[in-house]
Amino acid sequence: MRLLIRGADAVLTSHPAADSVLVEDGVITAIGTGLVVDAGTGIVDARGAVVVPGLVNTHHHMFQCLTRVRGQEHGLFGWLGELWPLFGRHDSAWQEAATAVAAGELLLSGCTTTVDHHYLPPASGSPDPVDAQVTAGRRLGIRLVSAVGSMDVDDAHGGLAPAALCESTDRYLRRLADLTDRHHDQGPAWRTRIAAAPCHPLAVTSTLARAAHGFARDRELGFHTHLAEARDEEAATVSATGLRPVELLAEWGVLGPRTWLAHCVHLSDGDIEVLADTGTAISLCPTSNLRLGSGISRIRDLVDAGITVSLGVDGSASNDGGSALAEARQLLLVSRVHGVEHGLTASEALVVATTGGARALGLPELGRIEVGARADLAVFDVSGLNAVGTEADPVAGLLLSPPATARHVLVEGELVVRDHALVNADPAELAARAREVARSLQTG
Amino acid sequence: MRLLIRGADAVLTSHPAADSVLVEDGVITAIGTGLVVDAGTGIVDARGAVVVPGLVNTHHHMFQCLTRVRGQEHGLFGWLGELWPLFGRHDSAWQEAATAVAAGELLLSGCTTTVDHHYLPPASGSPDPVDAQVTAGRRLGIRLVSAVGSMDVDDAHGGLAPAALCESTDRYLRRLADLTDRHHDQGPAWRTRIAAAPCHPLAVTSTLARAAHGFARDRELGFHTHLAEARDEEAATVSATGLRPVELLAEWGVLGPRTWLAHCVHLSDGDIEVLADTGTAISLCPTSNLRLGSGISRIRDLVDAGITVSLGVDGSASNDGGSALAEARQLLLVSRVHGVEHGLTASEALVVATTGGARALGLPELGRIEVGARADLAVFDVSGLNAVGTEADPVAGLLLSPPATARHVLVEGELVVRDHALVNADPAELAARAREVARSLQTG
Repeated sequence: MRLLIRGADAVLTSHPAADSVLVEDGVITAIGTGLVVDAGTGIVDARGAVVVPGLVNTHHHMFQCLTRVRGQEHGLFGWLGELWPLFGRHDSAWQEAATAVAAGELLLSGCTTTVDHHYLPPASGSPDPVDAQVTAGRRLGIRLVSAVGSMDVDDAHGGLAPAALCESTDRYLRRLADLTDRHHDQGPAWRTRIAAAPCHPLAVTSTLARAAHGFARDRELGFHTHLAEARDEEAATVSATGLRPVELLAEWGVLGPRTWLAHCVHLSDGDIEVLADTGTAISLCPTSNLRLGSGISRIRDLVDAGITVSLGVDGSASNDGGSALAEARQLLLVSRVHGVEHGLTASEALVVATTGGARALGLPELGRIEVGARADLAVFDVSGLNAVGTEADPVAGLLLSPPATARHVLVEGELVVRDHALVNADPAELAARAREVARSLQTG
Repeated sequence: MRLLIRGADAVLTSHPAADSVLVEDGVITAIGTGLVVDAGTGIVDARGAVVVPGLVNTHHHMFQCLTRVRGQEHGLFGWLGELWPLFGRHDSAWQEAATAVAAGELLLSGCTTTVDHHYLPPASGSPDPVDAQVTAGRRLGIRLVSAVGSMDVDDAHGGLAPAALCESTDRYLRRLADLTDRHHDQGPAWRTRIAAAPCHPLAVTSTLARAAHGFARDRELGFHTHLAEARDEEAATVSATGLRPVELLAEWGVLGPRTWLAHCVHLSDGDIEVLADTGTAISLCPTSNLRLGSGISRIRDLVDAGITVSLGVDGSASNDGGSALAEARQLLLVSRVHGVEHGLTASEALVVATTGGARALGLPELGRIEVGARADLAVFDVSGLNAVGTEADPVAGLLLSPPATARHVLVEGELVVRDHALVNADPAELAARAREVARSLQTG
């Protein structure tokens, strides 16, 4: 299959002044101006638009799409406390409906690859919700890294969640192995991968964390967890272990190039050095961190330390949405809170949201527009009211203006958003199905 | 003319459980459930939507729509320095095209009343750009408070702008009187009002400021200016006058209930007391303040002090967009930067963006859904992907989710946005016209 994306105002690539991108069999095969193609090549109109790499979202909890606007007046722990009882009702129907909504939102925002950190184990005897999630992700056409989580320390023992949401290390590892065998696709045209992702250092034993990391190493998977999101979380970690969050993970031996950590709001200079030295990547979640009052990450310091910095929309109960482009704008804005000189440029913010995400996930064939890269692309209009006056720098305009939906989105060279609409699903149907499941949570 | 807005999921009013609003001749005449109307009444479908008061934007520089993404790496003063040469080319064609774009963006974001702070005087012998602005605002159908500004201290004398953009106090006052005579409509169904609005305390003499304030008092106009936006601005004010910004305005005698001040990022406890004691209102511009690295206002402290707090999108060269709903979300998020307990609730943020704006402008008949209030209303979908899971609190969902465009917007009971589209203009035509003017700035 051949597609020519043609006539763009700008293409974010190292090729100067390109206006077209040729895609063949899922791969970018040419970038330039006035590319000539045969009659069998489909044409994707990019006039009045810019072409950027598909955005990469490295932290999400899609199931939270059904529990938005909860815990509005709480910080992290209070918010979790309000949500656990609802989370306890989680099942495959919920996960499938929520994944479809989240994937739809992400695709419409120009995001082509997403992580979902799913830390709720299936009820005993029930199918694993990750299976339903994979089905929904494939249906929508997004690249999904299902980061399979777990908890084995309950809230009666210093953990975060009620015992009913915890499971043994053995059960988790069996589940992780089974899901990896069935869903982890290592081919270049993959749509589903698995990562090992203990929920949170306070919610797991070192045994579970080390075993999960060992499994990830043996099977060449990514390793993911939450870290250093809130001040009271830091205090609880120090109180429980005598170590600060980064020190704890270092002690467990789970830092390194396959690991990416969500949040990292509260880091010391020493923490930053450790993360940089070990090649550990970070997923920043600025909107969620504001919503829960956690604060603003040391964004410039992280970038300057050479850490791979990526972007996460975080779960929809703390964002409360899933626009990757909106999150890139938010990152750019909050990076400047102590002065423009300490902040990111627009192009740096877009790099974090694309290349940074691809690198954090160990997927260098994504997040860039180069010959040979996978054809994951987002085409954004710059001809509307919101882009007037950005002609001098339309890509910066995309980052600085309030975000709109993408005109077209391609994953592996296939159109998954066309003319601002999902190709593989009807949003009204997805929303209605999700609301039906959400309603049953209220009343069930 | 009678319109019934019917079937909403929620109506933001003190009437519990209302789903419909009846509008007659520009005024809200009934609010309730299952309202029965005669066959001559138009029906506005609000099923799957919420109805909120039209948002009120109290600070903007619409002409900056044509100069977005400039000065990306500067704080306030450096950014201004990069923009003044472009601003020097300002004329009526620019102002009309930019006002149409900005009004279109605002209406689509649910904003029904906007201030435009326009501080560039007409070139000698040229028509006043405010006339062109009024034409454009009336065409789109928005309520426009044209805050007519001026500067009489140039940058060679400690002011902000080159001499070519300054004018004498006499000329400004003649212009202000003329514009007020021709455009200030005091009737309840008004679409255009004038306010007196010296650009900035550093850019004007006390003579100009006092005279403008006296004129505003005599003619019962609002009075507006910038204040306390950036740290280096504060330092420059102290260095030039020996007074901090709020102290300077107090000394000039221009604080009080008819005055609203844009930004107010850097305020001492004493400043806050003075603003509260004098009944001075504030327009907060959180996105612009982040973009220019100015910081985050003491939002909770201002609200708790009883100050009338309102919301401004600020000029499109520092936002770089004009979505009032996006700005309300941003205000909510950044208010929590030091913890949720210091932040705003979702409903407080919406009150700031509606009632707060109406109060700041001395227009209590706007910004609320009550019988007898003017029928300025915004109807937002809550049935799409982005609202899934917000059923428990759809109004909070509107504030917490990434903002979308309004389904319908009414100003004075007239539909100005219908089914997500401007009623009175074609956005593609507005954008094309504005781009044409913007291009002539680059090359002319």
